Amino acid sequence: MQAYLDNSATTRCLKSVADQVARAMCEDYGNPSSLHQKGVEAENYIKEAKQFFAANLKVDEKELYFTSGGTESNNLALIGTAMANIRSGKHLIVSAIEHPSILNTAEYLKKQGFRVTYLPVDKEGIVSLEALKEALCEETILVSVMYVNNEIGSVQPVDEIAKIIKEKNPKTLFHVDAIQAYGKYRIFPGRQGIDLLSISGHKIHGPKGIGVLYVGSKVKIRPILYGGEQQKGLRSGTENVPGIAGIAEAARCCYQDLDEKVDRLYALKERFAEGLKGLEGTSLNGPVGRDGAPHIMSVSFQGIKSEVLLHGLEEKGIYVSAGSACSSNKPAVSQTLKSIGLEKELLGSTLRFSFSFETTEEEIDYCLQELRKLLPVLRRYTRR
Amino acid sequence: MQAYLDNSATTRCLKSVADQVARAMCEDYGNPSSLHQKGVEAENYIKEAKQFFAANLKVDEKELYFTSGGTESNNLALIGTAMANIRSGKHLIVSAIEHPSILNTAEYLKKQGFRVTYLPVDKEGIVSLEALKEALCEETILVSVMYVNNEIGSVQPVDEIAKIIKEKNPKTLFHVDAIQAYGKYRIFPGRQGIDLLSISGHKIHGPKGIGVLYVGSKVKIRPILYGGEQQKGLRSGTENVPGIAGIAEAARCCYQDLDEKVDRLYALKERFAEGLKGLEGTSLNGPVGRDGAPHIMSVSFQGIKSEVLLHGLEEKGIYVSAGSACSSNKPAVSQTLKSIGLEKELLGSTLRFSFSFETTEEEIDYCLQELRKLLPVLRRYTRR
Repeated sequence: MQAYLDNSATTRCLKSVADQVARAMCEDYGNPSSLHQKGVEAENYIKEAKQFFAANLKVDEKELYFTSGGTESNNLALIGTAMANIRSGKHLIVSAIEHPSILNTAEYLKKQGFRVTYLPVDKEGIVSLEALKEALCEETILVSVMYVNNEIGSVQPVDEIAKIIKEKNPKTLFHVDAIQAYGKYRIFPGRQGIDLLSISGHKIHGPKGIGVLYVGSKVKIRPILYGGEQQKGLRSGTENVPGIAGIAEAARCCYQDLDEKVDRLYALKERFAEGLKGLEGTSLNGPVGRDGAPHIMSVSFQGIKSEVLLHGLEEKGIYVSAGSACSSNKPAVSQTLKSIGLEKELLGSTLRFSFSFETTEEEIDYCLQELRKLLPVLRRYTRR
Repeated sequence: MQAYLDNSATTRCLKSVADQVARAMCEDYGNPSSLHQKGVEAENYIKEAKQFFAANLKVDEKELYFTSGGTESNNLALIGTAMANIRSGKHLIVSAIEHPSILNTAEYLKKQGFRVTYLPVDKEGIVSLEALKEALCEETILVSVMYVNNEIGSVQPVDEIAKIIKEKNPKTLFHVDAIQAYGKYRIFPGRQGIDLLSISGHKIHGPKGIGVLYVGSKVKIRPILYGGEQQKGLRSGTENVPGIAGIAEAARCCYQDLDEKVDRLYALKERFAEGLKGLEGTSLNGPVGRDGAPHIMSVSFQGIKSEVLLHGLEEKGIYVSAGSACSSNKPAVSQTLKSIGLEKELLGSTLRFSFSFETTEEEIDYCLQELRKLLPVLRRYTRR
């Protein structure tokens, strides 16, 4: 038996997504910039995808851009707005538990002369609104806070954050990295006061190498790639038509019967949490139950190295992450786990289990069963 | 009957490419940064792709990076090296007939304080080596010249250019945009004195949204996207594994029996050129026969607007470009055609016909036959 419980690292592509991709690659393969029928056919995929996302997010089609993925969306959001609004100020605010594609981009902007404030979070990983209020100033051009944290599943009070920002200064932009939230939550940037929103394909059963960036029509933003001026000049480069068709199909599938799917995910989460209670020396990090995201669980295993347990589970066909898979191959200490104040001894003893709409009760039970066998064995080794 | 003669805009994906992409999307779908078996499986696609390109280009696997396409490869090459070598000088040299992803990136760098020299070309579109010698100075950190021009098929004397650069200053970097050349020419950066080389997937029957950048091991370069530090920190973001598998498969197919394929392309080019001779008021631009690339032909049609002819051909199922499809939807005058000194009255009367390994003699003959019928009709309209 196998249990793929690393869906926050990446998800399996849906068959219908693969079919769309193949069709755009082999049949309607034109360049959307071509003036003839083959170009028009390709452009229609883009139009349809934009129509879907516009309706889904309740935004205008003109506010949607396609990128090469979440990392590029986040880079374009931060660098693009920072450089375009430099005259209004040089201050940025991000949460302390953002994804590396935000934190490292903020570091780059620091080197370009921007000042960056990192908002602390509480033990559930929720951003301090007091700290936000204190940090906001006339100079603040952008605040970036992720919707759902990728390691512990904290859900930020996005609406409240937007309100606080806009009350202080309506011109301050609010970017939301929704890469772990999109497909699980109904997100309406216009209504929620979000100016920019990042989405990634491969976290929602779509293709790798494709992302969306919503940019509100009033946002001043500059490109970070230069060339043929596709996508109104904001994102040059021949559009990845198969990827665009794929991400739209994936999103469409995710939002079909969303409530039932999410209920099912919470039931799986509950089942796993219940099962873990019977296992000595385990503890959950981040928000529990419906306070957290439906698909991400962070679990600490006292006295066990996360990599050892990860590989122990791997041998049984159970696939999980130590921290997150987003930082390539480097066994670094998790910024998120540190920020929520996890005890030092547990920092290296924590695994992330992440589910998808394809995850089954059988997989959860199988994982629990193998943990039940493995933990005592591994603890015995550690004690030696 | 149909004739897709716009292969320099984009090509049809091969069936074997689509199969590889589907396999990497639906079966071996892991995140290459994941530490478990699913991650390793995904990483193997990347390893195999690198092995292929390393052997094909005779370079080291460590010198290969995957990007979201030709535009990003060119941006990373220019911005990445310019910013990393700013202390050695602030002078760049590019040819006047580069792709917009070079020309517009150079414009961006000008705004960042770099000085850019544009090398003129002769009427065949060949870069002036004298102008290059004059332009090179102690301050020159990078020269960027495309291998094959995308509009008229000029093939630059890349080896000579490299020699001239390195004789003047071995530290000056040489970037080659090989997006229209790769898959048609055997290119060996090490041997040819090329420090950086850009390749795009969708020009060689591979997927859109994927590219390669070769970066010689001694090249100082900085990332332009920040995040999880994948690809040794030079290109953050989850690798587009399906795209990587696809571009490698496409390249593999292109280089199989390359000589025969290229001979066949030249035969098609010759056949088309012969046929055009019988058509009044047509003239070829750029180098003829084997002096030019095997797959690109630029043809001017006296007294006929290129868009009118383009749509006339389109009605017959013949797909071509006016200039190039790379600049999105904007009917701008071609920089390349202007640079080779094409008469003003022909600038708006020029079409590009571009072939691929899938192009047949029947398609060429069909296109000639329809041109033979269309040209007199369209000229009659123009004269009214």
